[in-house]
Amino acid sequence: MADSKKMVEAITSMEEDFAKWYTDVVKKAELIDYSSVRGCMILRPYGYAIWEHIQHWLDSAFKSTGHENVYMPMLIPESLLQKEKDHVEGFAPEVAWVTHGGSEKLSERLCVRPTSETLFCEHYSHIIKSYRDLPKLYNQWCSVIRWEKTTRPFLRTMEFLWQEGHTMHETAEEAIAETEQMLNIYAQLCEDVLAIPVVKGRKTDKEKFAGAEATYTIEAMMHDGKSLQAGTSHYFGDGFAKAFDIQFTGRDNKLQYPHQTSWGVTTRLIGAIIMAHGDNNGLVLPPQVAPIQVAIIPVAQHKEGVLKKAGELKQRLEKFCRVKMDDSNNSPGWKYAEYEMKGVPLRLEIGPRDIEQNQCVLVRRDNREKTVVSLDELETAIPQLFQKVHEGLYQKALANREKRTFVAHSLEEMIQVASGENGFIKTMWCGDPACEEMFKEKAGVSSRCMPFEQEHLDDVCACCGKPAKAMVYWGKAY
Amino acid sequence: MADSKKMVEAITSMEEDFAKWYTDVVKKAELIDYSSVRGCMILRPYGYAIWEHIQHWLDSAFKSTGHENVYMPMLIPESLLQKEKDHVEGFAPEVAWVTHGGSEKLSERLCVRPTSETLFCEHYSHIIKSYRDLPKLYNQWCSVIRWEKTTRPFLRTMEFLWQEGHTMHETAEEAIAETEQMLNIYAQLCEDVLAIPVVKGRKTDKEKFAGAEATYTIEAMMHDGKSLQAGTSHYFGDGFAKAFDIQFTGRDNKLQYPHQTSWGVTTRLIGAIIMAHGDNNGLVLPPQVAPIQVAIIPVAQHKEGVLKKAGELKQRLEKFCRVKMDDSNNSPGWKYAEYEMKGVPLRLEIGPRDIEQNQCVLVRRDNREKTVVSLDELETAIPQLFQKVHEGLYQKALANREKRTFVAHSLEEMIQVASGENGFIKTMWCGDPACEEMFKEKAGVSSRCMPFEQEHLDDVCACCGKPAKAMVYWGKAY
Repeated sequence: MADSKKMVEAITSMEEDFAKWYTDVVKKAELIDYSSVRGCMILRPYGYAIWEHIQHWLDSAFKSTGHENVYMPMLIPESLLQKEKDHVEGFAPEVAWVTHGGSEKLSERLCVRPTSETLFCEHYSHIIKSYRDLPKLYNQWCSVIRWEKTTRPFLRTMEFLWQEGHTMHETAEEAIAETEQMLNIYAQLCEDVLAIPVVKGRKTDKEKFAGAEATYTIEAMMHDGKSLQAGTSHYFGDGFAKAFDIQFTGRDNKLQYPHQTSWGVTTRLIGAIIMAHGDNNGLVLPPQVAPIQVAIIPVAQHKEGVLKKAGELKQRLEKFCRVKMDDSNNSPGWKYAEYEMKGVPLRLEIGPRDIEQNQCVLVRRDNREKTVVSLDELETAIPQLFQKVHEGLYQKALANREKRTFVAHSLEEMIQVASGENGFIKTMWCGDPACEEMFKEKAGVSSRCMPFEQEHLDDVCACCGKPAKAMVYWGKAY
Repeated sequence: MADSKKMVEAITSMEEDFAKWYTDVVKKAELIDYSSVRGCMILRPYGYAIWEHIQHWLDSAFKSTGHENVYMPMLIPESLLQKEKDHVEGFAPEVAWVTHGGSEKLSERLCVRPTSETLFCEHYSHIIKSYRDLPKLYNQWCSVIRWEKTTRPFLRTMEFLWQEGHTMHETAEEAIAETEQMLNIYAQLCEDVLAIPVVKGRKTDKEKFAGAEATYTIEAMMHDGKSLQAGTSHYFGDGFAKAFDIQFTGRDNKLQYPHQTSWGVTTRLIGAIIMAHGDNNGLVLPPQVAPIQVAIIPVAQHKEGVLKKAGELKQRLEKFCRVKMDDSNNSPGWKYAEYEMKGVPLRLEIGPRDIEQNQCVLVRRDNREKTVVSLDELETAIPQLFQKVHEGLYQKALANREKRTFVAHSLEEMIQVASGENGFIKTMWCGDPACEEMFKEKAGVSSRCMPFEQEHLDDVCACCGKPAKAMVYWGKAY
């Protein structure tokens, strides 16, 4: 117990300092390490394995909806980045520039990709000639660099891993349907796999992607009430197509511009998992992406038969889940604390008395609930408990969001609500960026999204009193 | 047939110009596209899918031998790259330098990783403290950049995709065993999956990796007799560990330096597949990595029942292989040529007469052999034919290598043999780099490897006549 206490004491409590708690967890759970490269992190095996499970689920979802993976160069010539005006304005201030190859100065600077719209468009201009070549449904898995001033592991780093989908369609309707389809896949990932409820909606013009006509988003609420943009999909219309001269012969035999989308999620989803589900004992992982789903802890392992039985159980469990048996010399208490820190969804305790009674104890990470289970029923009990942990996490996150979702009817009310605890603040909005700016300046909140599920709170904008156009979620965001 | 002829005519024959044939195939088979980024290529869906199959096989092999995936930053500070003297000398001339972030000039240049030994070592210095922390068996999948003057798709590009394994061990013996294990996995990939026979051996000091004590390699012979280094593993001893101050407390309670390895294969394996198996009709893919394993071509598809039957077959075949059914309006001849160009291992032809007789025709891509198969036996016949195609490819490549493996007993003989057709030239060697240089200068060949399977050809070095230390394979290489 002394050991176990030592480990738990090593992290700051959430209530004391949420930001410090967060960085303690990412280090102690061995998700990342820092390096001498400013603003970049090392994804350690435990952190990377979570990403691999997310990748695997998404990659299947992309392929089953007809998408194909490709790989584009990581360097973009400055002249190519400049082809679409809004895009270059949005990204040029935050790119890393390569100016030398070996000892030779380059005639044109190359940026390390911050996103790859320009490269995809150049390629599409080579391969799209006829409506028969459409749609093109491409995706790539890679890392990108954005030159950030202040960084935090997973949430905002100079380099991050992501997937970027880039598609081209014959009609605007098809392209818009694609952005909706991909947003729904992201929402499904968050809710059904990561146990994080999300609000689906559209970004205001101020918050949309550089060069997009419309940006759709899923917004998740973290334990501290701050919002996290968990995934976005963008509709570009034919703006890039015109800038890059991508034209196809339509069914009417006339030259037309195709309609474009892009969509992406990043390793910041791991940050979302940590901040949506974690607690003062460390990480809490949703079972579907947990690198270890069950930690088997032999109790009184020096006694005859205990390690043998624990080893047998490991072999049995490996057939249907990801399992680790810890037969190290650390005390059971130390091990409990370690696998709690690592967020392992279920702990299986097995000792001499359990063996005698042909049973074991299963302990849920999310609420520490213990269940005594017959050793004959593990194949059904464990998947059921995974489902319960998933539901428990989801409901807890949902309850937190509901508790922290507020309404404001005026600027004064907005200022007052925003000065209290963090959360989503709903208001009506006239659509004027000036009101959006006013909320930001006076209340410190940004617009998170105009949710697809609109509510009618008032007839008028909470800021200026002019007729309202939409209900908006506002909040402080990561 | 006019169509089909047009397509075939579009590639240069191997005999006329092998280099041109190669670039024709990579373009026409839609493996890559060029971009405005000099020396970088776009991996199109068909090319990337081959890489995904290679990745999938390797990743399983790595994990089943205890390796874990991680992700390191793509940028390396100049000071970190300089820590190991031989390493920086080898790589500094060919790295891309980032000098600006946004509009700000950096105080220290960062290079885009050409390889990640330095980053792994920095991380290992943080996490290796005790013999209990060893071994560390890490791998990462990423892309790297090397500033090459002349480039060719897959074979030599400024940016390429690869995996780089980096491991740390308690003893030299363990580390050397790791390099052997990984070389064997690479050889198994080439021979059992890609159907390319390889020679396993050790590189001479001149050809070894910058900073390594020993480099092991697998060398494959291409159709034109040139050699291709298909994978390497390196033993570093404790050189990097000393440079990066990585020390652990050993079982004897004393501070020690760990022993290190690294190993990698790249997308150039796709170049190897093309040049080992391709022919004048285009690509020929080994079945295990072919994105499409069977192309179903309906014959007389306007006739009643043909498309329905072809669709049924597609659904059946999908259960055990990767299949495409082409019901486009192109002629069967055009389709035959297209899937030959794309190297699809088996073509399944089904027409009205076949349906009447409950059969279809299966045509092997490698030798165009036709087999009439009962529709009741596809589930057994197709996997058997995959195996036959694999063996056919392997034997053909092996026969080419055997035909093109020569022996030289003197410098004069070396010059004479090397001026003939390309191939491996075996000689005895004294171990003196001066003789190696002489062979390069006079005969235009480099040492490929000192094969593990040594033969005793002579007592003395073929170049200088001094006592021989090893038999070496020499050749022209990609």
